[in-house]
Amino acid sequence: MSVQLNETHSPALRSWVVSANDGATDFPIQNLPFGIFRRAGSNEAFRVGVAIGDQILDLSIALHAGIFAEISNAALAHALTATQLNPLMDLGNQVASQVRLCLSKALREHAVAQKQLVGTLIAQAEAEYALPAQIGDYTDFYTSIHHATSVGKLFRPDNPLLPNYKWVPIGYHGRSSSIGISGQAFRRPIGQTMPPNATTPTFGPAKRMDYECEVGIFIGQGNALGSAIDIQEAEQHVFGMCLLNDWSARDVQAWEYQPLGPFLAKNFASTISPWVVTLEALAPYRKAWSREATDPQPLAYLDHADVRNAGAFDIQLEVLLQTRKMREDGLPAQRLSLSNFCHSYWTVSQMVAHHTVNGCNLRAGDFLGSGTQSGPAAEEAGSLLELTEGGKKPITFSNGEQRIFIEDGDSIVMRGWAQKEGAPRIGFGEVVGSLLPARSIP
Amino acid sequence: MSVQLNETHSPALRSWVVSANDGATDFPIQNLPFGIFRRAGSNEAFRVGVAIGDQILDLSIALHAGIFAEISNAALAHALTATQLNPLMDLGNQVASQVRLCLSKALREHAVAQKQLVGTLIAQAEAEYALPAQIGDYTDFYTSIHHATSVGKLFRPDNPLLPNYKWVPIGYHGRSSSIGISGQAFRRPIGQTMPPNATTPTFGPAKRMDYECEVGIFIGQGNALGSAIDIQEAEQHVFGMCLLNDWSARDVQAWEYQPLGPFLAKNFASTISPWVVTLEALAPYRKAWSREATDPQPLAYLDHADVRNAGAFDIQLEVLLQTRKMREDGLPAQRLSLSNFCHSYWTVSQMVAHHTVNGCNLRAGDFLGSGTQSGPAAEEAGSLLELTEGGKKPITFSNGEQRIFIEDGDSIVMRGWAQKEGAPRIGFGEVVGSLLPARSIP
Repeated sequence: MSVQLNETHSPALRSWVVSANDGATDFPIQNLPFGIFRRAGSNEAFRVGVAIGDQILDLSIALHAGIFAEISNAALAHALTATQLNPLMDLGNQVASQVRLCLSKALREHAVAQKQLVGTLIAQAEAEYALPAQIGDYTDFYTSIHHATSVGKLFRPDNPLLPNYKWVPIGYHGRSSSIGISGQAFRRPIGQTMPPNATTPTFGPAKRMDYECEVGIFIGQGNALGSAIDIQEAEQHVFGMCLLNDWSARDVQAWEYQPLGPFLAKNFASTISPWVVTLEALAPYRKAWSREATDPQPLAYLDHADVRNAGAFDIQLEVLLQTRKMREDGLPAQRLSLSNFCHSYWTVSQMVAHHTVNGCNLRAGDFLGSGTQSGPAAEEAGSLLELTEGGKKPITFSNGEQRIFIEDGDSIVMRGWAQKEGAPRIGFGEVVGSLLPARSIP
Repeated sequence: MSVQLNETHSPALRSWVVSANDGATDFPIQNLPFGIFRRAGSNEAFRVGVAIGDQILDLSIALHAGIFAEISNAALAHALTATQLNPLMDLGNQVASQVRLCLSKALREHAVAQKQLVGTLIAQAEAEYALPAQIGDYTDFYTSIHHATSVGKLFRPDNPLLPNYKWVPIGYHGRSSSIGISGQAFRRPIGQTMPPNATTPTFGPAKRMDYECEVGIFIGQGNALGSAIDIQEAEQHVFGMCLLNDWSARDVQAWEYQPLGPFLAKNFASTISPWVVTLEALAPYRKAWSREATDPQPLAYLDHADVRNAGAFDIQLEVLLQTRKMREDGLPAQRLSLSNFCHSYWTVSQMVAHHTVNGCNLRAGDFLGSGTQSGPAAEEAGSLLELTEGGKKPITFSNGEQRIFIEDGDSIVMRGWAQKEGAPRIGFGEVVGSLLPARSIP
């Protein structure tokens, strides 16, 4: 991982796609995130696209227009005409970087390719998305020490931060089958809970429905079973990042999670944003890792000067809630929190190095969650459990509505972006998900 | 789940494949388990087969010989000529049952099909196997109360069996990518451990390597996200069962497992047997579930008369160990334990009903582990952790060698079979896996 800026990062670059140049878009020409899309409501095959301003460039069209002529071969042609990103991910980040450079050149003002491509763009407003990749395995980490501490206080008041936290990038396996793309609406889960002071559990719809604001990480080229990915090479195995809402049923979780971890409290739905932002695009937003002077130095396999100096990302993470009433009254979603990925105790490269140190194999398209990203301040908490102090302190919105947990009909919106003076804004778009009423119990 | 015996179960049935009739084989004509095979060492495509005696019938050949003529259609033809069982699993158990009936008729003594098929059989001794299915998600349960109690005593002496155990079929998500087929040899994992009384963790090869003897369950037809599978229908969604060795690094597990469960302690390798035995074949071996009079009745979604009366399976589970020296000296693997799946506190249908009660979707080819199957007696324990009482009591073999945990070069063999007077033996074959030395640490 050496963080280098190249010509695709130049703030001076402008695109012939006018909406990419307004400074407010998530998708300027310096971003070029990958996704899988088709025309909304059509029966077209899903295909590989890149977001530019408020438009999408279809990479199979770009391929046939010859913009990858310098680097094209059969494997790349296969990857760019696939219905998922796995083949492109599998080609490795050097190829993805070359693809982005070709795209950057073709989408610049005065590019020769403009003539061929301009009529082929599809408005994002007219598109629908599929999962970017077939996700073989999904692993969820727990990298925010602020989240671990405040949730730990609620579940284990006498023992909030466990002794392994500052040594082990804690993670666990999640469920792939129920991961959906932004727009996912799912039923309130039904299950067992143990009410306070009860002696037998209750069965019914979960009552303490929550979100978790996370960064999602797509693995590019994997590793063979039995090999480990060195921390210095770890980011070469990361294709890019998106937003992840790891929905959680807190009452189910509290009753089921010991001794083997959360299960039905989490696996009913997880929702991700459609655009995968490359680490290359985020290069201007690198930061030193977040540690206190009193924190232990990690073990050698989790330590490297590059990670210390530039392993973290300055990505703002915003969560908003829109009730059914707000929607009906034309009120936009209301902000619940604003945090930043830079507060994460463990970095992306530490997650990858840890995951594989035992020889576990990652495959192209595998997905990692960062864990809930709560910042140090109370208002930076990435879940309602934290914001309402375990359900004790309701949140009041400007229209007078209140929430402790998510109610049927509510939508949760998450947005992420990196922005600073002198560099283009690199955005993630948004992930939206909605809670439907529980199915009826016979 | 109504347990009915049909003509495929008749003990009187004999096959023209002579080795299927000797009473000792795992694969008489009443079994007919499905697997994915090819000639060992060849570059042939893997294909669908059925075990009969010491032979394999290639189902693409059987299809072309017309033995499925009565039931054949495009979807079935696709499923029987596939390289994995997922398409067949997806067709549902009624189809799998019809396929077994056609096979039973074609493989019986005096069957007309004998002439066409006899020259096409492949000896199991000349075959190699692939995973039966592409496993989308792998979930590991914890259904043996004897295992949960004795391991609980080691990890939490004051609190061995947690209060949720008799209410919740505890499970957690595992890793799909590192599941391998019998014959898997893998390197000793490397990782963090916290030695007793130490204040900083140690890094290096795991020292407490263990196996877990489990039954593996392949899902057939799945369910839609948001729907639940009723306990009465649950077994219609189970394609069949095999043996599973859920390798575990106990020292890694002890340090990492709180609060989110085991991760690197388990995901470096899991090994399964190649033949998937249908529940239909196991119908003569149904038993009442295993409960004490003082145990609580499960909640309604986990309770049904059929499950109470016949939800369990009488399957013997044997574990053996062969050291490198035994192999070199021509000594066979030595028995470590013999247990039975009927001791499981939670049944297969309870696992499926619980997994989906919150709306979680299962897909054809998904895989469930039963959790370590330890019986009530100490010698029935399904792991070395239990057999050696946490590593305190070595096991001595007849050649004088001793083991506390698994050493480099050791192989673990697991076998499973159902057998009783008046019914044919229904066997699972075996799953073998071997531990290689750790990779060198730079």
